[in-house]
Amino acid sequence: MTRTSQEVRLLNRPIGRPDSSTWEITESAIPPLGDGQVLIGVQHVSIDPAMRGWLNDVRSYVPPVQVGEVMRAQGVGTVLESRTDDLGVGESVTGMFGVTDLAVTDPSTVTRIDTSIADGPTWLGALGMPGMTAYFGLLDVGRLTPGDTVVVSAAAGAVGSMVGQIAKAHGARTIGIAGGPEKCAWLVDELGFDAAVDYKNERVLASLRKLAPEGVDIYFDNVGGETLDAALANLRRGARVVVCGAISTYNETSLPPGPSRYMSLLVFRASMTGFVVFDYEDRYDEAQRAIATWLEEGAVSARTHVAEGGVAGFPQALDMLFDGRNTGKLVLEIARRPY
Amino acid sequence: MTRTSQEVRLLNRPIGRPDSSTWEITESAIPPLGDGQVLIGVQHVSIDPAMRGWLNDVRSYVPPVQVGEVMRAQGVGTVLESRTDDLGVGESVTGMFGVTDLAVTDPSTVTRIDTSIADGPTWLGALGMPGMTAYFGLLDVGRLTPGDTVVVSAAAGAVGSMVGQIAKAHGARTIGIAGGPEKCAWLVDELGFDAAVDYKNERVLASLRKLAPEGVDIYFDNVGGETLDAALANLRRGARVVVCGAISTYNETSLPPGPSRYMSLLVFRASMTGFVVFDYEDRYDEAQRAIATWLEEGAVSARTHVAEGGVAGFPQALDMLFDGRNTGKLVLEIARRPY
Repeated sequence: MTRTSQEVRLLNRPIGRPDSSTWEITESAIPPLGDGQVLIGVQHVSIDPAMRGWLNDVRSYVPPVQVGEVMRAQGVGTVLESRTDDLGVGESVTGMFGVTDLAVTDPSTVTRIDTSIADGPTWLGALGMPGMTAYFGLLDVGRLTPGDTVVVSAAAGAVGSMVGQIAKAHGARTIGIAGGPEKCAWLVDELGFDAAVDYKNERVLASLRKLAPEGVDIYFDNVGGETLDAALANLRRGARVVVCGAISTYNETSLPPGPSRYMSLLVFRASMTGFVVFDYEDRYDEAQRAIATWLEEGAVSARTHVAEGGVAGFPQALDMLFDGRNTGKLVLEIARRPY
Repeated sequence: MTRTSQEVRLLNRPIGRPDSSTWEITESAIPPLGDGQVLIGVQHVSIDPAMRGWLNDVRSYVPPVQVGEVMRAQGVGTVLESRTDDLGVGESVTGMFGVTDLAVTDPSTVTRIDTSIADGPTWLGALGMPGMTAYFGLLDVGRLTPGDTVVVSAAAGAVGSMVGQIAKAHGARTIGIAGGPEKCAWLVDELGFDAAVDYKNERVLASLRKLAPEGVDIYFDNVGGETLDAALANLRRGARVVVCGAISTYNETSLPPGPSRYMSLLVFRASMTGFVVFDYEDRYDEAQRAIATWLEEGAVSARTHVAEGGVAGFPQALDMLFDGRNTGKLVLEIARRPY
């Protein structure tokens, strides 16, 4: 019996926001497994802001996805077939399987996940890249100190919601910036943020001045644009700005203006530092153990936003992310139940 | 006998570039000295880019100069009269005397200088704030390591010329960015920079790519604007951008766009850090001793550009600075000889 996979491939590099002309849904025959290979049935794939950057043909921290290639994506799934002793059929795993329902791969690119600790989508969120990003960005890059006032943008997103909760667990005061009253209420009422700023209905610069009159010690930036400037205007002396992302600008067709207020770094003796989570790979264990403990204790709550539609639902799911229609970690369900 | 001082006062806050309507030259009667006071005869005042910032009515690292006040400036001079045991007549001193020829002040705001080590203007340059700024910006903020590739803008200016020479003295490769072939030749031929980029006749981004194909470890920014973006595009992994100044933007009437390429900080895991030299006051001795030794050994050469015209020459001297017509540290001569 020949099995076929369904996958999303890059058809045309988008100019501006990806649309229907960007993607192609294809089917491919799955070849018989070679020695040492495994076949993964993918259950969920992670939908991430970073995906937009991978579509541009520019030098960055990872090579771009090439036209014709399966779209890069982290996934969780189950080993369906194995021709290696390293991984057995039925094991739950995560890896960069791409936007596909079936992936043939080498076990060295695959990591086991313990689904007794958390379900698959949480391994793509709180215990996955977004959790790692929040943890190392806040503690290592941001050098969080108890008592700090921490502001995070895209606070209702996968990374932002973890940043606020991890900061809180370390005794920081946390202010989240998010779009709309529902998200803001969720941050304060459910996640325990001390305050939230609704950027769609408030002037962020003025609201931050009111909420943090002494200034901000750490600004964890996921959005760039005007929000970054609003934070720069409200730093405290010695502040750390953690440059994690700039989702507000990812679909611009030309390089948008940078932060006008960057000279605040001088006034406040502050720093702005970029990082890439992959550099912390050898310490993921440490972060996962810490986050798993917080999850168990209830200090951190992981919310997943599951988009449906299988492989073919990918373009819509990505659109949802850029519209900010998700609350919590956005994943795309590929298969309703384990293979 | 009543003595009068001549001084420059702020008449109107400038919008954009200061001009003749900005300043007023006044004469004031010098009152008899009070107990504990000294009268300083000012010989040279320092002309600094930071002066432009002091004219804006905004919160910054120092309060703005108020309309009607004597323009703030560092000076060197001689004690003419003394009613304190702390300072004797004839001693050479430096302090924030303002743009004036005679200043009545308290000895606690005055520092003795040793003119056997260097002349007065050098105490405003290599051994003064510019030297301190270069030293701490490069070594502390920039964390200079031997073998680093260091790029500095406004390299023929007071701070920039010191940055390049101190970097060189620490075994770094140094590239200076300056305007015009004469300044560039001076950097390479006289100061020992490894290379220079003439921003008036070259595309800085492309030239840096050629001169530092492996990327830049430290970019010491005195100018902001496009030059900052050109450097951000050419960082090496782990680079440090030292935010010292932004002279290219100081006379803008609205907040100019910030560095479009700031997301390079993420790609290169780099940081951008602001600082204010006054924070290092308790370590000026250390820096002055080091720089004095380099001056003596010839590892560092201090060039002073002396503008003439006395107190009334201040507006023209400041203009010269913003036109980049100085090479080396710009000072205004107030008195031809010691009082």
